[in-house]
Amino acid sequence: MAQKPSIPKGTRDFNPEQVAKRNYIFNTIRGAFETFGFQPIETPSFENSETLMGKYGDEGDRLIFKILNSGDYLSKANQDAYEQKDALKLTSSISEKALRYDLTVPFARYVVQHQNEIEFPFKRYQIQPVWRADRPQKGRFREFYQCDADVVGSDSLWQEVEFIQLYDAVFSALKLEGVTIKINNRKILSGIAEVIGAHDKLIDFTVALDKLDKIGEEKVKEEMRSKGISEEGISKLQPLFSLTGSFETQIESLKSILISSEEGTKGIEELSFINEAISELGLNTAKLQLDVTLARGLNYYTGAIFEVAAPESVKMGSIGGGGRYDDLTGIFGLKNVSGVGISFGLDRIYLVLEELNLFPETVTKNVEVLFINFGDKEALFSLKAIKTLRGNGINAELYPDAAKMKKQMNHANKRLIPYVVLVGEEEMKSNTFTLKTMNTGDQQKLTIEELISHI
Amino acid sequence: MAQKPSIPKGTRDFNPEQVAKRNYIFNTIRGAFETFGFQPIETPSFENSETLMGKYGDEGDRLIFKILNSGDYLSKANQDAYEQKDALKLTSSISEKALRYDLTVPFARYVVQHQNEIEFPFKRYQIQPVWRADRPQKGRFREFYQCDADVVGSDSLWQEVEFIQLYDAVFSALKLEGVTIKINNRKILSGIAEVIGAHDKLIDFTVALDKLDKIGEEKVKEEMRSKGISEEGISKLQPLFSLTGSFETQIESLKSILISSEEGTKGIEELSFINEAISELGLNTAKLQLDVTLARGLNYYTGAIFEVAAPESVKMGSIGGGGRYDDLTGIFGLKNVSGVGISFGLDRIYLVLEELNLFPETVTKNVEVLFINFGDKEALFSLKAIKTLRGNGINAELYPDAAKMKKQMNHANKRLIPYVVLVGEEEMKSNTFTLKTMNTGDQQKLTIEELISHI
Repeated sequence: MAQKPSIPKGTRDFNPEQVAKRNYIFNTIRGAFETFGFQPIETPSFENSETLMGKYGDEGDRLIFKILNSGDYLSKANQDAYEQKDALKLTSSISEKALRYDLTVPFARYVVQHQNEIEFPFKRYQIQPVWRADRPQKGRFREFYQCDADVVGSDSLWQEVEFIQLYDAVFSALKLEGVTIKINNRKILSGIAEVIGAHDKLIDFTVALDKLDKIGEEKVKEEMRSKGISEEGISKLQPLFSLTGSFETQIESLKSILISSEEGTKGIEELSFINEAISELGLNTAKLQLDVTLARGLNYYTGAIFEVAAPESVKMGSIGGGGRYDDLTGIFGLKNVSGVGISFGLDRIYLVLEELNLFPETVTKNVEVLFINFGDKEALFSLKAIKTLRGNGINAELYPDAAKMKKQMNHANKRLIPYVVLVGEEEMKSNTFTLKTMNTGDQQKLTIEELISHI
Repeated sequence: MAQKPSIPKGTRDFNPEQVAKRNYIFNTIRGAFETFGFQPIETPSFENSETLMGKYGDEGDRLIFKILNSGDYLSKANQDAYEQKDALKLTSSISEKALRYDLTVPFARYVVQHQNEIEFPFKRYQIQPVWRADRPQKGRFREFYQCDADVVGSDSLWQEVEFIQLYDAVFSALKLEGVTIKINNRKILSGIAEVIGAHDKLIDFTVALDKLDKIGEEKVKEEMRSKGISEEGISKLQPLFSLTGSFETQIESLKSILISSEEGTKGIEELSFINEAISELGLNTAKLQLDVTLARGLNYYTGAIFEVAAPESVKMGSIGGGGRYDDLTGIFGLKNVSGVGISFGLDRIYLVLEELNLFPETVTKNVEVLFINFGDKEALFSLKAIKTLRGNGINAELYPDAAKMKKQMNHANKRLIPYVVLVGEEEMKSNTFTLKTMNTGDQQKLTIEELISHI
């Protein structure tokens, strides 16, 4: 019996319209990346397992798709694990490769492996799919694209300034106005933890603070208490809960909180530098906002932390994020290479553009004219004209079969092809073409030159 | 200790220049596909195993990369297989997904799954990577792209005609002149087998015939004898070994051989139709050649068989291939949907263009101008100008650090950036920019407008 066809959960087929819309976003991002001087690289879909494992925490390791070794993979299976039926322990002996989980670790691997060919600072971008064995849910997939731009080999804050401009450039080009680029700095979070005497509880503290938007001030304080942060420390945080006003005003409040922390003060200086530069340079449609509760994969970032929020009218999580990391390539043996990068969330940007009706109508490059097929002689005559049209950059095609006229016209209608051309005895004799405009029904007889200029 | 980074054998990293060159080929192919009325689809990188397994023969099944189930995958393991340590039998119980092996089977699955949304005839193209656990060797990789265009839902021979034009259009656009598009027809091969009384030995017969170029007439005959093809049958083949001359002359010879075979005669009619149409329409730079030894995955094709050979000056296998298949979607339950399609071999086309030096110099979209960084004040002033340049479509960047002048100039040199801009006290005062042309060393002081028009 024939199989009922389906695809694995969490994966997607994309039809022509969806591919065109996705490519519109990819091309916009790619264009901005290149204008800003980033260069493309690509890495393999699967990496050696040891390249990926242990880089994303236990939870990440679990979500990495492992590829079974080829051939008699049991011949090298770990005997103990096999006898104990210990899947976790067995895996590394029957699987040596895994699908990449993100683009950042493969990029770090690339930089170290090719360090002698790379001219630093290295500005690279990478637009490729990644795979995660996450539980699929609305807007979360097991295969999805990441669009990353990173600079490695420079700790200049001008990079942070440029990444903010880059976000602004991309979202402005997509006509997605009113996005908020939130910025924070790991050094400020460390500084606060230091000031409240919770330096050893930095993660607990930031995880709690990160929830301020969702659960409110009291619940955040409760969580901090439960994690053993002192009442005195929490009281020192009070100004944090009421940080409002402009970027500059918030900076002033933070200064007073962090006055005793060298690291925190450094963080404030960095943020001020970035904010002043952006004020001078201006943004087209985005706005920059200080968000001291922003943490994102904290263990990873060492300086600036970015996150982009869609316009307030759309309910959607972040549509981009990134930050500075000071020792990414260290895991592969190349120390002291500072990096900073940002990422665009393709799927969410797609949903936002769809919801706000921002995809240009011309995004799908459709066939512009269909030649009706009345038989082999007419078809050959038509194909000669079609060849000329294609040579002039017009997407044209012949209906392949001499089917009933009505069927062919229906085909043009269903595919939203704007013009059809009719070629019969008379047209062949006079070397002309009857062009029918589908939405008006108008017909006119044209020479090939007129046909080209009309379409 | 840090890991020494590497990638799995048979996979590749692509540096910026390679990505740009590959994209040049992809974009050329994509452009031609769209001009010819093909629409893009994309399918997931991995499919359910049952979608792929059993579609490529035993050898193919072996070469499919299987993905290990997530979590405690041993809990569902086949007990018998586990106890017997039978890897082959165990696989399907610990792996439910596999990386796609080609684009054709996923396309067939797509057509059947989405048949109610598709308007037939359906012309689709698909450019995505595939994976095969083949032994890696020169020019053969475990991850590589396929670029396929297919039409399903029409048995019109005009499709074959258009595919020949499409090959010609792509290779002409790539400036790769002198490719040979070889064509054959499965019905002719069946007809010959019938005529020589070896209908049940069709595969043995075509496998032997396929080697004519490599091993010569005598060895081919020997192989046929060893497979049990009669001396009388082989003698009837004699005209086949000396088929020369034009397409039309060869057709005439074939006619006399196949006069008693209905199927063979049908094949000749099809080839003649296609050849006559192409003669009328003309090709730009490719030539069409009848090659009765051409077989390619014979079990698959039912009508036309295509293969494209690189210009004779280049030693390279086929750079494209395809053909008609009459029941591809049948395996998924949709009967009687005829299809025909072609494929482009990206990696080999890349090697050919490289060898013949046919990549345009402008293919890598490099940074056009680097602003030297003399300090924060100058950097800010520069970034304002850079913003204007980028707004005018010029790829520009600022060196991120106020490093030594020599280091920054070296960076521009190594990255082959054609211009640098120097901004110091004086330039800031007079709102001008000193532009240095790297290959001549010329320097000139320009306003921002002059800078834009100069670059």
